[in-house]
Amino acid sequence: MVSDATTRIQRVRDQLATLDTDLLLVGPSADLRWLVGYHALALERLTLLLVPADGEPTLVTPRLETPRAQQAGVADHARIVDYGETDDPIALVAKLVGPVHGAVAVQDRLWTAFTLALQQALDVSEWRPGSDVLGPLRLVKDAEEIAALHAVGAAIDEVHAQVPQWLRPGRTEREVGRDIAEAIREHHHEVNFVIVASGPNGASPHHETGDRVLQEGDAVVVDIGGTMDGYCSDETRNYVLGIADPAYAALHETLETAQQAAVEVAGPGVTAEAVDAAARGLLTEHGYGEQFLHRTGHGIGVEEHEAPWIVAGNDQVLTAGMAFSIEPGIYVRDTHGARIEDIVVVTEDGVDSCNHRPRHLVEVQP
Amino acid sequence: MVSDATTRIQRVRDQLATLDTDLLLVGPSADLRWLVGYHALALERLTLLLVPADGEPTLVTPRLETPRAQQAGVADHARIVDYGETDDPIALVAKLVGPVHGAVAVQDRLWTAFTLALQQALDVSEWRPGSDVLGPLRLVKDAEEIAALHAVGAAIDEVHAQVPQWLRPGRTEREVGRDIAEAIREHHHEVNFVIVASGPNGASPHHETGDRVLQEGDAVVVDIGGTMDGYCSDETRNYVLGIADPAYAALHETLETAQQAAVEVAGPGVTAEAVDAAARGLLTEHGYGEQFLHRTGHGIGVEEHEAPWIVAGNDQVLTAGMAFSIEPGIYVRDTHGARIEDIVVVTEDGVDSCNHRPRHLVEVQP
Repeated sequence: MVSDATTRIQRVRDQLATLDTDLLLVGPSADLRWLVGYHALALERLTLLLVPADGEPTLVTPRLETPRAQQAGVADHARIVDYGETDDPIALVAKLVGPVHGAVAVQDRLWTAFTLALQQALDVSEWRPGSDVLGPLRLVKDAEEIAALHAVGAAIDEVHAQVPQWLRPGRTEREVGRDIAEAIREHHHEVNFVIVASGPNGASPHHETGDRVLQEGDAVVVDIGGTMDGYCSDETRNYVLGIADPAYAALHETLETAQQAAVEVAGPGVTAEAVDAAARGLLTEHGYGEQFLHRTGHGIGVEEHEAPWIVAGNDQVLTAGMAFSIEPGIYVRDTHGARIEDIVVVTEDGVDSCNHRPRHLVEVQP
Repeated sequence: MVSDATTRIQRVRDQLATLDTDLLLVGPSADLRWLVGYHALALERLTLLLVPADGEPTLVTPRLETPRAQQAGVADHARIVDYGETDDPIALVAKLVGPVHGAVAVQDRLWTAFTLALQQALDVSEWRPGSDVLGPLRLVKDAEEIAALHAVGAAIDEVHAQVPQWLRPGRTEREVGRDIAEAIREHHHEVNFVIVASGPNGASPHHETGDRVLQEGDAVVVDIGGTMDGYCSDETRNYVLGIADPAYAALHETLETAQQAAVEVAGPGVTAEAVDAAARGLLTEHGYGEQFLHRTGHGIGVEEHEAPWIVAGNDQVLTAGMAFSIEPGIYVRDTHGARIEDIVVVTEDGVDSCNHRPRHLVEVQP
């Protein structure tokens, strides 16, 4: 799916120059996949791509992983330097980097143990997060990335379409979760997460799918996501086993309105916080403000959660090509919860949704 | 499975005092699970356990995750301080830590972006890897941990016992891998990895299970592992579809001898490198030295790969309670490969294996 590593590396170089930074170091991560299409394993054996502001990129890799790096086509874009089981990769990086006196950026999720060792071994005046360099580049998706987000969104739609058949009184959340995970895999996704939060468990936004047995009348929050061709899905819908309690139905209707309000506000030239405010304002008006426990959304792409953050205080202006979730929720402690989530992509005049399942509450009849 | 967080926290405090280190910072990780039994999500929202050499531990957590932390019983061992969606967790940590002038240890796998931000916000003279503190503690397993390793080893044995039925000409590695993953889940494991490396793919130790179609006569390396009750399994066996090529059968017989030699050498008072040398020496004698591409093994516990490393140059002396893999391999480029792997635990007079499947080459008859 990563089509143009050459272009992306050049954009990194330009960004390094802009930031007066000499070097970017990228370990196994979504950043590395995005940059050169290599899905490296995060191991105790260091894999590190060195992208200097000037000069050729180099991939330092354990010799054991060299075949995987080559298979991924890394050699088309970087020199590959591998090391043996008893070599010291930090010393190798230091030798390759040579004396550096300016700023060096380190990919955000590199393990701290590696960064501390690099800080010991390299003479650098300033260490900065890799997201300073890569964040702005990944923030705006190109046409191919947008197509990938729509494709993975359609695939998770198909899984949600199947969910009602698995929701039966007497089954556990875990059993339902397994069926969903299996369906995600059948739709060519890797499973990233499956949340099945039934009854009072719905009141915990990150509930861990567990042993609770579904009961007639339960509201069930189903929040699922996976990765297909390197891009992520994330979609939440709410179901009831049988007939919804009127209070829950009313709550859900308000939530639909709030989600729709945020979708309608979102578009180019609007700030991230304005999208959050649209959903939050409506829920607050209806007395649910305190029960909307989290931000309205997060960016998505090669990672489930990335910039832009749709949250109060973020005055980032949205532009065409940005992709994020819009997912207000209402959580009534010890009782029930609901969340409606779609992934949207900013267009020239608004947003396109990657998800098309009906947003209304689904009453599952046996 | 983590039984005694109080004891473990006290051991961390003692270790901090020994190392003249003021504070240990632990993010979402196996270390955190091991220490207080909390499986925190690695999110862009920081979760961080602060364990000072003196004083009460504190868990800084996003408010959204507070229910999960409480459910895990963290409040029995640490004060919980949570923060809202628009708060700055780094500033919160800085406030809680106060002025620190000595050394601070940071858990090895904390994301670099958090560590760089902490380095900006805290006044610390020396940053050191968390493994300086936690490594020695996790290295020697207690009785309960050893029981868990045996239990998860027995579970993965049962999966290997089923593998032959899935190996049929015409099926892809991926199809076989799915059956294996399903079986691992049925045996109450989370799946950590499934390697099905058929024919020439067996020559790549970390082959990614793919679309190759199995053929009559193929050798297939099956290396699988998962997590049960917090502890990991990891077991490799080799299969042939039909009758083994005589050259491969001979290679495999030598490999069995090498694996057995390493198992026999391993025990208390022996160095890690001596175990490596036992397998490597035998393979070198038989002309396979160059084709044994990796170290002989890695420690295992709450992580798939941890200390002790069974590798040349590691003069760590093994003691009772250490657990690691013994997994020599022979990789013949473009042709085939083989690896035999068991997890062993050091006892008072040798090692106990956690895996009991026969180690010989299994010829699968249709």
